[in-house]
Amino acid sequence: MSATDDRYPYPVAQIGIIGGGQLGRMLVAAAKRIGCTCTVLDPYPNSPAGQLSGEQIVGTYHDPAALKELVAACDVTTFDIEDIDTETLGGLSAAGHRIFPCPGLLADIQDKLRQKQVLADAGIPSAEFAPADAPEADAFAAFGYPLVQKVRRGGYDGRGVQVMHEPADFDKHLPVPSLVERFVPARLELAVMVARGQDGATCAYPPVEMRMRPGENMLDMLLAPARVEDTVAKAARDLAVATVEALAGVGIFGVELFLTEAGALLVNEVAPRTHNSGHYTIEACVTDQFEQHLRAIAGLPLGATDLVRPAAMLNLLGEPGFTGRPVICGLRAALAIPGVSVHLYGKAETRAYRKMGHVTVLDADIDQARAKAERVRDLIRIEGEEAA
Amino acid sequence: MSATDDRYPYPVAQIGIIGGGQLGRMLVAAAKRIGCTCTVLDPYPNSPAGQLSGEQIVGTYHDPAALKELVAACDVTTFDIEDIDTETLGGLSAAGHRIFPCPGLLADIQDKLRQKQVLADAGIPSAEFAPADAPEADAFAAFGYPLVQKVRRGGYDGRGVQVMHEPADFDKHLPVPSLVERFVPARLELAVMVARGQDGATCAYPPVEMRMRPGENMLDMLLAPARVEDTVAKAARDLAVATVEALAGVGIFGVELFLTEAGALLVNEVAPRTHNSGHYTIEACVTDQFEQHLRAIAGLPLGATDLVRPAAMLNLLGEPGFTGRPVICGLRAALAIPGVSVHLYGKAETRAYRKMGHVTVLDADIDQARAKAERVRDLIRIEGEEAA
Repeated sequence: MSATDDRYPYPVAQIGIIGGGQLGRMLVAAAKRIGCTCTVLDPYPNSPAGQLSGEQIVGTYHDPAALKELVAACDVTTFDIEDIDTETLGGLSAAGHRIFPCPGLLADIQDKLRQKQVLADAGIPSAEFAPADAPEADAFAAFGYPLVQKVRRGGYDGRGVQVMHEPADFDKHLPVPSLVERFVPARLELAVMVARGQDGATCAYPPVEMRMRPGENMLDMLLAPARVEDTVAKAARDLAVATVEALAGVGIFGVELFLTEAGALLVNEVAPRTHNSGHYTIEACVTDQFEQHLRAIAGLPLGATDLVRPAAMLNLLGEPGFTGRPVICGLRAALAIPGVSVHLYGKAETRAYRKMGHVTVLDADIDQARAKAERVRDLIRIEGEEAA
Repeated sequence: MSATDDRYPYPVAQIGIIGGGQLGRMLVAAAKRIGCTCTVLDPYPNSPAGQLSGEQIVGTYHDPAALKELVAACDVTTFDIEDIDTETLGGLSAAGHRIFPCPGLLADIQDKLRQKQVLADAGIPSAEFAPADAPEADAFAAFGYPLVQKVRRGGYDGRGVQVMHEPADFDKHLPVPSLVERFVPARLELAVMVARGQDGATCAYPPVEMRMRPGENMLDMLLAPARVEDTVAKAARDLAVATVEALAGVGIFGVELFLTEAGALLVNEVAPRTHNSGHYTIEACVTDQFEQHLRAIAGLPLGATDLVRPAAMLNLLGEPGFTGRPVICGLRAALAIPGVSVHLYGKAETRAYRKMGHVTVLDADIDQARAKAERVRDLIRIEGEEAA
């Protein structure tokens, strides 16, 4: 990226992406559209993102040589996962390579305890918490039930999180370095995507409503916009922007919030990347979260975040009991519903609950969008050619 | 594509695309999103579409061996250009390979005289015309001026079309097999994208307004929706659907129409493929023209064509005087305008007036969209690293 004075020799930028999953795949699609080229680093050849980028380095996210090769080949490097060797990246960043969000921030966010501490230090409201590096029954009891145990590192998609209602639940604790958090009876779980540019400019998408599967901590359906009062929507956006500003983040961030039964807003977690709760922006918003992230990390102006039509989104997860080559059942039936867009991620194998794709439903009426998405959920299913 | 009973082993379909230009590129993006894989046939390695598909056969559109290799490797084959060897394709189609739109129809459309005759036979209104296989001054005079000479084969983007106002203009005639057409004083030039499935189901997008560069027969700006009365919009959609039904086309078609000063609608030309006038659908419509085409040719239900927000679109053409590696000037300035989306096609070299990309501007108000697009036109420019 040798732009001087608003002149960009093609490609506009060579983007390095650590992680070749679905987030990387959708990022590559946006990047190529806007005139960038991409190289993906992923341990598996022909990764979902590699299928679009054309260029892939095969290596792990913890392989210093592979990370160096990627960063050296690109103008700007970013990531679609969090479990990366931030030490190597930090050295590359210090040496002048452009890596966004910056590796130090990623290191803070990777560790859920440090993430909470950084946010608390900045005055961002979140659930009360305490370290629990060696989980013990007495310490949990002293903190008080109900509580949520969260492992400090490596949890995702609801894994690494344990809700405990009473002392007897300590039996199901995870025996790894953790934190404990006050269990918050939430009226709604919200998410706000926020982008921040290298110049400090920010923009936020409308808050969306993350409806979780009961008792499972897994997204069941996302509704955009969230069905909350305008004042709550504004407060949620403001809090999410303040959160990303507190982190001095560059790129896009998914800020998950609890709207408590008492009407308070608390930050639950921050994802320093594009986010499942922002997939709906591809169809429903003027600038989607993937292009927005690129604009931020490539030093281009941020785009408009208006929602042009309400949307419901659901993930397509691998059906339990199957593995092997995926088989998409009910695709025709689902596509026959007006407003339905199906995204498949090109994963060669299905597994129980693996994210294989997602569906976005647009409708001028959010309740109609939701009703259509419920029909889609009943119609479409990702099986596999082999029994698991 | 071995779907039985609405079960699709991944990939949903392997799509062959003859032609690796920008239309193919955007088709590949849609195809991968919906779970298809793609192979592109193009004479130039690393074509715009090949950059996304990963798979490319390097060969010409007239190379029977290359065409056979492509068709044999894919479940369904389509094209992004019209200048193809339809004889080989016709044989492959007769042998049971799925090629849409069908090669016989493409052969009719490739020849502008046959296209006019087929439409006339079906009762589709168009400008009066006559064959002119060997253009002669007397015959042109007998047909009567003002007239438009159109070459039968190979014209595109305004090339191969000559407007003649009086007998002296015969000096600039094109000395190749042609037709002559009555010059129609048009109030507006409209275009309607129509898709038709293998089952005969059809859908149409709203009519758009193609504003041409004065005297140049080149698109200056596209406005969606066209600023016409509802009755005219409905009549235009109906005529476009009737046109595609008359052709028994499968896939998406761009139907260009004249709205005459007298208020009549005439079909100007039909493109048997995705069309420049449909690019705006990526941002502005529920289902874009590329996914719509795929749905039609892959036997999936057609998608919703609603316009969710008005749009203006303009092409980014190579600036005269430059060649070599493209240099995008004014990109940051253009992207700073809310609602602007920039598409670059990944072409390695610019040339005068070559289509290098396009810009879509969304705005709740069509006049604002147009005003923003005019600003973008003044800001963004595709130069090159070398003087032409």
